Amino acid sequence: MIRFTTQRQVEFRDTDAAGMVHFSVFFNYMEEAEHGFLRSLGLSVLTHDALGPLSWPRVRASCDYRQAVRFEQVLDIDLSVRRVGEKSVTYDFVFRQGPQVVAHGELTTVCCRLSAAAPPQSIAIPAEIRARLEAP
Amino acid sequence: MIRFTTQRQVEFRDTDAAGMVHFSVFFNYMEEAEHGFLRSLGLSVLTHDALGPLSWPRVRASCDYRQAVRFEQVLDIDLSVRRVGEKSVTYDFVFRQGPQVVAHGELTTVCCRLSAAAPPQSIAIPAEIRARLEAP
Amino acid sequence: MIRFTTQRQVEFRDTDAAGMVHFSVFFNYMEEAEHGFLRSLGLSVLTHDALGPLSWPRVRASCDYRQAVRFEQVLDIDLSVRRVGEKSVTYDFVFRQGPQVVAHGELTTVCCRLSAAAPPQSIAIPAEIRARLEAP
Amino acid sequence: MIRFTTQRQVEFRDTDAAGMVHFSVFFNYMEEAEHGFLRSLGLSVLTHDALGPLSWPRVRASCDYRQAVRFEQVLDIDLSVRRVGEKSVTYDFVFRQGPQVVAHGELTTVCCRLSAAAPPQSIAIPAEIRARLEAP
Repeated sequence: MIRFTTQRQVEFRDTDAAGMVHFSVFFNYMEEAEHGFLRSLGLSVLTHDALGPLSWPRVRASCDYRQAVRFEQVLDIDLSVRRVGEKSVTYDFVFRQGPQVVAHGELTTVCCRLSAAAPPQSIAIPAEIRARLEAP
Repeated sequence: MIRFTTQRQVEFRDTDAAGMVHFSVFFNYMEEAEHGFLRSLGLSVLTHDALGPLSWPRVRASCDYRQAVRFEQVLDIDLSVRRVGEKSVTYDFVFRQGPQVVAHGELTTVCCRLSAAAPPQSIAIPAEIRARLEAP
Repeated sequence: MIRFTTQRQVEFRDTDAAGMVHFSVFFNYMEEAEHGFLRSLGLSVLTHDALGPLSWPRVRASCDYRQAVRFEQVLDIDLSVRRVGEKSVTYDFVFRQGPQVVAHGELTTVCCRLSAAAPPQSIAIPAEIRARLEAP
Repeated sequence: MIRFTTQRQVEFRDTDAAGMVHFSVFFNYMEEAEHGFLRSLGLSVLTHDALGPLSWPRVRASCDYRQAVRFEQVLDIDLSVRRVGEKSVTYDFVFRQGPQVVAHGELTTVCCRLSAAAPPQSIAIPAEIRARLEAP
């Protein structure tokens, strides 16, 4: 299974008046890890080819929170590609602060043609992208 | 089952370069609906009583996305209280644009004492709060 | 001078670990007021006509902060159009909580053609838009 | 004059439906640079000492935008300390993409005691903090 690891320091804007990272921000952390992973493969989450923009809208996102995280703490984020389907990719994310798992997330994205005038249109993942997502 | 309905117009900052509402923003919409619901009961998600701050950290959040939503569109958001446990509350959210369901979310929150020095400490939901959450 | 008034309740995500509205959020409040103002004139900050997308990138933004604002407080926001130039519009914003001025902001925006391939291109404000911005 | 340099890659959440970094996000970039600068001096923007929380609320923020910035571009951010007053610090920020200046920002912050019950109270910058801010 393909894995990718990154780190993220908690910025002040990530916190809220309860003194901890706002729960919605973990979804941004997941996405930042996903995009770093795609860049590590020479890909991008938003590209433009001869047919127009190609991107990966999300069809499902979830997160379990186990422990509060605070300003300036540093999280280790482990991404794994759980499944590459015909049109979709599902990622797992484990967030650790030191040895402690603080959250666990999942993201399912679908390869789509974008247009300003119509809804995103799902397509089979192009072969050259699939090859990189499935490489050992 | 208790229900609460609100509306939310998509602000420009809610969008991203794919031209649609960023997926993480639906979690903020859920929270805004939850807080509006609590206010409608005379409650708040963050209060201070004689023992210090009391709040509702999230232990689980998820969202299924069915259709892209764009700038200035107006969403109808239906909140329902699915379960009130000893310490936790689970909410369901249905997002509609006109007759069309565009997303479906869930949020589980736990009643906690907060402190700057220690992790949030879960407590049994105080009786006066429970009474309002369970009122017909 | 044209004026427009709106209200905004502070959402939890607008706050930070210092317990108050994050300073960057006032710029989103300004923009929300600007967009509400444009809608009140039958306009939008992002439109698509026969020549492609037309929008109003900002060339300058500033804010003076006089008083901390907290979760669930309600701000009155007064927008005034200070100047309509050939290509640009400058807005003033006064934020009040009750009788108290809590912040004062300014925003200068430029009418531009957008394209994915090139930088935004400033243009003279189209006559039908100018007429609405200058109406009494 | 004290200077500090950092880099920031544009994340997808930083963009909007006009396809560029949202103008409000530059204020978060400034703040991230400021906090990295404070950490480089062994300081933090939010600390707790025997008298309670100490932080640096902003009294003024401004930004001039010269060029649109897009997803995945990398910005060089140069912070300089323009003035250390009795209670306040003013920072300058220059944002470059390659050799091109894309934005210029300013931030004035005031050293304050925070409390949940009262407005922030400005204080003279403690000597040990001042010494680090003024070090060559």
